[in-house]
Amino acid sequence: MRSDRRGPRPPRLETKDAERVARNPRGRAHESAAARVDPHLTFVYGFHPVREALRVGRRRLVRLHATKEAADRLSTEIAAARVPVNLVTSQDLSVRLGAQAVHQGVLLEAGALEAGDISDLAQSGGIVLVLDQVTDPHNFGAIVRTAAAFGLEALITTHRHSPQISGVLAKAASGGLEYVPLINVTNLARALDTLGEYGFSRVGLDSEAPKPLEAIALSTPLALVLGAEGQGLRRLTREKCDVLARLDLPGPVKSLNVSKACAIALALVSGALRQQMGGRP
Amino acid sequence: MRSDRRGPRPPRLETKDAERVARNPRGRAHESAAARVDPHLTFVYGFHPVREALRVGRRRLVRLHATKEAADRLSTEIAAARVPVNLVTSQDLSVRLGAQAVHQGVLLEAGALEAGDISDLAQSGGIVLVLDQVTDPHNFGAIVRTAAAFGLEALITTHRHSPQISGVLAKAASGGLEYVPLINVTNLARALDTLGEYGFSRVGLDSEAPKPLEAIALSTPLALVLGAEGQGLRRLTREKCDVLARLDLPGPVKSLNVSKACAIALALVSGALRQQMGGRP
Repeated sequence: MRSDRRGPRPPRLETKDAERVARNPRGRAHESAAARVDPHLTFVYGFHPVREALRVGRRRLVRLHATKEAADRLSTEIAAARVPVNLVTSQDLSVRLGAQAVHQGVLLEAGALEAGDISDLAQSGGIVLVLDQVTDPHNFGAIVRTAAAFGLEALITTHRHSPQISGVLAKAASGGLEYVPLINVTNLARALDTLGEYGFSRVGLDSEAPKPLEAIALSTPLALVLGAEGQGLRRLTREKCDVLARLDLPGPVKSLNVSKACAIALALVSGALRQQMGGRP
Repeated sequence: MRSDRRGPRPPRLETKDAERVARNPRGRAHESAAARVDPHLTFVYGFHPVREALRVGRRRLVRLHATKEAADRLSTEIAAARVPVNLVTSQDLSVRLGAQAVHQGVLLEAGALEAGDISDLAQSGGIVLVLDQVTDPHNFGAIVRTAAAFGLEALITTHRHSPQISGVLAKAASGGLEYVPLINVTNLARALDTLGEYGFSRVGLDSEAPKPLEAIALSTPLALVLGAEGQGLRRLTREKCDVLARLDLPGPVKSLNVSKACAIALALVSGALRQQMGGRP
């Protein structure tokens, strides 16, 4: 998966290995020029993603390329994170990232985030999201943002069918990547087995399910399992769930984009669990 | 707003006037060649938007340009709608619509949808959505799709700050435009007054509101009022609401894209109202 091609390159799938090498202070990664060819660094761009990366501090920060205006907006975070700043023009960033990238005047060169491992969830008491073949980076990123908004403990997905942790995804995640550990597994069915052993209740969202989500008894730890729009869950994924539930849509349009279905499902699940725990109505 | 420019043109804001002229059988609108310069026709593209336009029948259908494959997939709808089909290649459509347009092999030339009027809601017992300065066509379209999924009675927005009913919007709405009447008003505050006179309870979503949406007593007819991401509701809009409510997000990321906030709010409102009416839990 490494590339020796020179010049700007897309960020890559983040792995523990990548993180380990990126942390090596003797490596070339500390040089800005090297960043363009170093496969162990990622680019984070866009105001929210960069701000959250600076605030949360889970990444090794190499250098922030920013317009004067953007650097002023982020001055508090820049000072706190002690990241070197390279002042550039908006055009410089567009040239580097491509005209499509909505960089909002900031590009952060940083180490990759450490990927999580499913064993991290052995003592979990919260909610995790399991994505079955959701590959579109916009959808995936939007789901990461929603997952962070609902304080999920992890997002589990498969290596092969997931998009690389690209700038597009990070931008769509709007900083959410800094908060929700991504756990890549090679076999989703086996991961669901493991979650079952850890005591997770596995709830699959399926448009053909006999009961609506509101009618399902919920308990934590809980794994909410979502499939791609139009395709839904694969047979084996469905079989590994403890219960299947549908989202009831009262109107004439009977399907929603997967990231929106995810947001609704998390709102319902999170609200129901809070009510059970005697929280706010 | 008319353009005499020849060649493919973006679809336009749909008005009653436009619809009236488009319906005139002596007009040039019945000629495919004329469609390219006739400001009273719209282009609908993408599989779902075109399928719903054919199924629902609220538009005057002029001609469907489709690839052989797409025409086969839509053969039932084409036969039922009796729309003339012009077989084309995928490339033909890309040339006509631009390379960015995800047309999925279909482009429908059709009359504009009739715009609604706020007086249509005088006897309403349902839910309407009021958008304050939500202008991004992707967000606006996604909201229309969600509104259709929840069976809303109308979507109210302001002329000046709304995107034209563009192909991008129609595509993002994924067929939802055929079901939810759009009502354009010049003054949103006055429209909220009118809804109040019609007996609507006006609930504004505001991140600074003292109570979460789940804690608000809801009743129909109900107008859910949403502002643009980051900006929220304008002061006057806020003042015209009967009650303000916030969306509680338990995680570290404290905001969501407006179309996702809308989906969550509608799920909560719709669920709460169903429960009150003694429906399913």
